[in-house]
Amino acid sequence: MTLPAADPALVEKIALANRILYRYGVVDGFGHVSARHDKSPSHFLLARNMAPALVKREDIVTFDLDANALDAAGRRVYLERFIHAEIYRARADVQAVVHSHSPSVIPFGVTGQMLQPVFHMSAFVGEGSALFEIRDVAGDTDMLVSNGKLGAALAACLGSRSIVLMRGHGSTAGGGSVEQAVYRALYAEVNARLQMQAKLLGEVKYLNAQEAAKAAAINDTQVPRVWELWRQEIGPIE
Amino acid sequence: MTLPAADPALVEKIALANRILYRYGVVDGFGHVSARHDKSPSHFLLARNMAPALVKREDIVTFDLDANALDAAGRRVYLERFIHAEIYRARADVQAVVHSHSPSVIPFGVTGQMLQPVFHMSAFVGEGSALFEIRDVAGDTDMLVSNGKLGAALAACLGSRSIVLMRGHGSTAGGGSVEQAVYRALYAEVNARLQMQAKLLGEVKYLNAQEAAKAAAINDTQVPRVWELWRQEIGPIE
Amino acid sequence: MTLPAADPALVEKIALANRILYRYGVVDGFGHVSARHDKSPSHFLLARNMAPALVKREDIVTFDLDANALDAAGRRVYLERFIHAEIYRARADVQAVVHSHSPSVIPFGVTGQMLQPVFHMSAFVGEGSALFEIRDVAGDTDMLVSNGKLGAALAACLGSRSIVLMRGHGSTAGGGSVEQAVYRALYAEVNARLQMQAKLLGEVKYLNAQEAAKAAAINDTQVPRVWELWRQEIGPIE
Amino acid sequence: MTLPAADPALVEKIALANRILYRYGVVDGFGHVSARHDKSPSHFLLARNMAPALVKREDIVTFDLDANALDAAGRRVYLERFIHAEIYRARADVQAVVHSHSPSVIPFGVTGQMLQPVFHMSAFVGEGSALFEIRDVAGDTDMLVSNGKLGAALAACLGSRSIVLMRGHGSTAGGGSVEQAVYRALYAEVNARLQMQAKLLGEVKYLNAQEAAKAAAINDTQVPRVWELWRQEIGPIE
Repeated sequence: MTLPAADPALVEKIALANRILYRYGVVDGFGHVSARHDKSPSHFLLARNMAPALVKREDIVTFDLDANALDAAGRRVYLERFIHAEIYRARADVQAVVHSHSPSVIPFGVTGQMLQPVFHMSAFVGEGSALFEIRDVAGDTDMLVSNGKLGAALAACLGSRSIVLMRGHGSTAGGGSVEQAVYRALYAEVNARLQMQAKLLGEVKYLNAQEAAKAAAINDTQVPRVWELWRQEIGPIE
Repeated sequence: MTLPAADPALVEKIALANRILYRYGVVDGFGHVSARHDKSPSHFLLARNMAPALVKREDIVTFDLDANALDAAGRRVYLERFIHAEIYRARADVQAVVHSHSPSVIPFGVTGQMLQPVFHMSAFVGEGSALFEIRDVAGDTDMLVSNGKLGAALAACLGSRSIVLMRGHGSTAGGGSVEQAVYRALYAEVNARLQMQAKLLGEVKYLNAQEAAKAAAINDTQVPRVWELWRQEIGPIE
Repeated sequence: MTLPAADPALVEKIALANRILYRYGVVDGFGHVSARHDKSPSHFLLARNMAPALVKREDIVTFDLDANALDAAGRRVYLERFIHAEIYRARADVQAVVHSHSPSVIPFGVTGQMLQPVFHMSAFVGEGSALFEIRDVAGDTDMLVSNGKLGAALAACLGSRSIVLMRGHGSTAGGGSVEQAVYRALYAEVNARLQMQAKLLGEVKYLNAQEAAKAAAINDTQVPRVWELWRQEIGPIE
Repeated sequence: MTLPAADPALVEKIALANRILYRYGVVDGFGHVSARHDKSPSHFLLARNMAPALVKREDIVTFDLDANALDAAGRRVYLERFIHAEIYRARADVQAVVHSHSPSVIPFGVTGQMLQPVFHMSAFVGEGSALFEIRDVAGDTDMLVSNGKLGAALAACLGSRSIVLMRGHGSTAGGGSVEQAVYRALYAEVNARLQMQAKLLGEVKYLNAQEAAKAAAINDTQVPRVWELWRQEIGPIE
């Protein structure tokens, strides 16, 4: 393997991202976050098969876009690493991916409803989330995106959006950086909770497409503010 | 009493299970978890009458399948130990039982609705939960399963399912190991919360029977991942 | 003042009760808990005007049944001490009173609906909570039960029940001991949350009167179990 | 700059207010709280652009009523400082302002519904909250109140009320002191949650105008009680 080592700061950031997502209830004992390799766009970095809350730097494994591990050294890897591989293959702009069973998002997937931006913090949802129905691709399955064909179908369903709901399973968000992907996964959960409540109260006025585009752009300039908070809340890892 | 001592690792695991279930809000000051004795299928291990969060190894008592304590040494035992005894008697495949008043599950029992698997994590719910109506067995009671007759009726109602709701009371889940029973009790609570929300949003597409069976099988291979997290979160007991 | 000093264990227990109620979200910066004086049934013990979470033994003040403080020594007292005074006057069986703005109970009071026992843990609700409408007694007020006339009206509304809802304000629960009053205030909150959810799901089958009476009786024998947990969770005060 | 230094106790109180609001979930990584300068009514104090939970005394910057920073010394400032500036300009009685995305309030803004006082603790809501529709002022924007014109429109919408909802964004509360503004922001969140639940249960009887006015007046005398709790919960800053 002649691939140069990934930036240690990126590896560290992935470990941190796992713990932030756990702290905020986006992942529980399950779910995962990856980043595209900073030295090779055709590789990505993802923890070995383990609970996100426990991930350390040394647990990060390198994968190619067929989801083969380069340096697992016998360690088990996630069954659903294909989610990440195929989104990196399909979307050159995506540098990080979060897959979770974020609780408030689940009811939307199973009722066939889109997430829509209730407030500016979730403007990245834009004109709405995509919805992946695994039955349409492979019939009755174990619900897992555990091979390249399913991963490619999921990536196609995501299209150019920021987040795709997965019926009976969870959701997957992509971003231009680890920080942005974490931000999106976390505020997708917040938005889902607020959208549910708003729908019970009455007719909801969502951000329109122009508002969403403008708000998403300005929000991106504020991500470092909240990342600094999250980083301090987690503290040193190890 | 000529019964050999239970495996200390199993006794330790029951204490740990009590604390995990408390940490995740499945039990509060009430509720209990047992395991079948590893040396004698006609005995089981269950804490003395106490709050689950406080259980230590030395609080675990051995019972026979008539719910008689062998080594209580004067300590009070749970009024509802018959739940455990009769499920172990009826279900040779069950190695551990969790009884709780897990909050989100209660509204289903009192409205006569089944838990159904909203997502793959709760695929063990399969084609739905059973519902135990104690009034049908014994008229107006104190709601407790406090004798063998009521325990046997509950076990019969559970049948071959993984979980039975108890109207106006709580629920009971069985599993093939302590880990699996804890997992099921915890994700039954999560599923109930999500199912309630989904029903308020619209028509729910649950996992079908084939999906549930396949997902339950693959999920069982992932339980050690989350158990390791829970074990570390509790830390050493004592 | 010739009144003998109250049992220090009772004073300590009141301080502990304040902190338990805060830990479980029954009170926030507001709300209070009292006990009838163990040496004089015509006196009661209640903290000075302060946040429940901060109450220590030395903050407990003695009051007569007209809500006059005997030993406030210049310290401010609660505006609503009349709630306690008049319930002790009207109900010889009540030894402790909790007044709170327990959140899930509020929506019942303002929509004119009764708490009813969803599960055996809240069997003490019996055939339903009382509802106090302060407007019927005194027209448009500041909503506070801040004199004897309002206190007496509240006590009359409570009648022989365990809990009275106060429209636009909160609720008040009485018990035969500090432990029982705390238990009732806490499980009234739990019951309210579950009852709301159940009502959204469908037609609710509550405990009937016979079930509630029997379950309440047996539950009272289990209160020491949960009190021991709560006591350990708070730890030493000071 | 000849402006005398603000009272250090006030600066400290603003840092404390930021942390209280974070602890209680009124702000997350976003949101801000300011106070009018105690030596100059035409200036106010507000943190530099950062997460509220991390604010220390030295992060507080002085602004004039055009939202120009006097002593930022190159530090980034909040894009929405105009919210504060224009409310101080319009409302001589306001001494402190909290802007947040307080979650339970959001569903009201996006469905065009007013907060109304469900219980006496939120009597300051009076006859209802105002609602700011930024589209009416500036068409499709990034949703931020990021200039004086938008700030003035928001202040005009607030009028003499205590709180204004901002559609698709959040809310802003004003008070006669830092303590009061924090109290209002926090209990607006509580009220919103209870009001949502009450509306799902049935027809809601809110405090009427007379009750609200009387309750708000008496509650204001109790704010020091809860502030003492919050202060102790945060502990020393730094």
